[in-house]
Amino acid sequence: MTLSDRRPKSTARVRVREVDSGTVRQREDLVATEEPLEIRVAWPGASPRSLVVTMRTPGADFDLAVGFLVSEGLLTHPDGVVQVRYCTDPGVEQTYNVVTVDLTGPLRGPVAARYGAASAACGICGKQSLDELELSGLHSVAPGPVVDPVTLCALPDRLRAAQSLFSRTGGLHAAGVFTPEGELVCAREDVGRHNAVDKLIGWAFLRRRLPLAGHLLVVSGRAGFEICQKALAAGVPFVAAVGAPSSLAVDLCDRFGMTLVGFLRGARYVVYTHPDRAAGRGVNQ
Amino acid sequence: MTLSDRRPKSTARVRVREVDSGTVRQREDLVATEEPLEIRVAWPGASPRSLVVTMRTPGADFDLAVGFLVSEGLLTHPDGVVQVRYCTDPGVEQTYNVVTVDLTGPLRGPVAARYGAASAACGICGKQSLDELELSGLHSVAPGPVVDPVTLCALPDRLRAAQSLFSRTGGLHAAGVFTPEGELVCAREDVGRHNAVDKLIGWAFLRRRLPLAGHLLVVSGRAGFEICQKALAAGVPFVAAVGAPSSLAVDLCDRFGMTLVGFLRGARYVVYTHPDRAAGRGVNQ
Repeated sequence: MTLSDRRPKSTARVRVREVDSGTVRQREDLVATEEPLEIRVAWPGASPRSLVVTMRTPGADFDLAVGFLVSEGLLTHPDGVVQVRYCTDPGVEQTYNVVTVDLTGPLRGPVAARYGAASAACGICGKQSLDELELSGLHSVAPGPVVDPVTLCALPDRLRAAQSLFSRTGGLHAAGVFTPEGELVCAREDVGRHNAVDKLIGWAFLRRRLPLAGHLLVVSGRAGFEICQKALAAGVPFVAAVGAPSSLAVDLCDRFGMTLVGFLRGARYVVYTHPDRAAGRGVNQ
Repeated sequence: MTLSDRRPKSTARVRVREVDSGTVRQREDLVATEEPLEIRVAWPGASPRSLVVTMRTPGADFDLAVGFLVSEGLLTHPDGVVQVRYCTDPGVEQTYNVVTVDLTGPLRGPVAARYGAASAACGICGKQSLDELELSGLHSVAPGPVVDPVTLCALPDRLRAAQSLFSRTGGLHAAGVFTPEGELVCAREDVGRHNAVDKLIGWAFLRRRLPLAGHLLVVSGRAGFEICQKALAAGVPFVAAVGAPSSLAVDLCDRFGMTLVGFLRGARYVVYTHPDRAAGRGVNQ
């Protein structure tokens, strides 16, 4: 094995054949890079421990690693992080696909037990998944903000405009944090939509901007349970998705006081929970 | 805890507010159900072992559980399955969210070691991910079939027509197996796109229709590494996606002799690997 420090790129060049109405044209194309990232944690007196391998688009890897720990409830305060680093172990072939988060002390116990051991739970269900979030210390988000319908409807286009990789590859999920006035705070892209959100959360965490009370999370795809769980962990009170929500996402947002908007397209959207933040005319009728 | 045998539904009814150009209308809406499913395996002389919890849309749960085992390389022949059953342990609250696959004998050793233990690998990269597939016994798919461009372009509409849940909720991934003549063999939907493919593979496996040589897998979204890995495990030589592929999906299909088509929309598509199966006029120029 040779020590490689060639940083993986976010896109890869491939030779393709484009077929249009049966006629073939050869050309070059860009695809979004997908590479595994192993996330490890270490703390004084303990050897590094591998938590997860996620398939991600290289870029903002430190944000992704930290955001994963935060949204899983394993990390609660920036002071708990000493440093984040790529693996420099001797003999490691791909330096840039292993990230270690050095912590000041051990991971939080009860939740950390989930990693490295298969679930022993019997009788899981959606309600239990929500109960577990509450037991892990997550509670309802703060009230506000109220977002004007015109502002809300402008957000998907603003998110798309910030997607530099999508415009080149046509194939990435995006997530963005916005102010209630519609200003983009931060946008991230990834082949995995959960990763895009973790990158955002890690970005905010490392800059001591959590909880993201008073902000919106906008996602380019659908809003499932895990997206809303991550938003809750980051204290985001308002999740807006271009696609559809799932039943458990609706249940989660309802229970934790979050506003969930789906099908945010053009001048139209659907409010699933806590509509006070997404008021239109006649909302109280 | 009470023993519940209320079978989860594939959709859930919710009360929503639809905002269009700022005007609010209250109505009922259907969302796709998302509930956790715990997949367990058991064999004579061993106590049941939990492998994974996946968030899925209820329906075809047995196919999903078996398909997961097959696409992970943990199960290779239908004779290895004694039965598939919902959990009936006393005290289990949600009978329909735990599925146990009873096997004739232990899981295949080397691969099974991945479950229940965090990865000890150092220096992971995309190439290593592909090497591992080869080491796990997967090899290149068989040659053929050749699919006519007009037939290929008709498949997304046929898949969509088979999506009964999507038409009601607007929010589900779909995967379908087609013949080279464009006939739909089986279609499945899920909030998770990996699950939709696993449901298909389990369906085919339990009916002794694997490998799916000579067939196409069509997916409603993007084609990432895991989708193509599952197709390879099922022996599908042709993957066609409505969305974009990732770099590692391209690498996988290139290496294992599979044809990968992306952006299959209208009369146009892009062929990323092994274009001999997706010929258009002038393909050899």
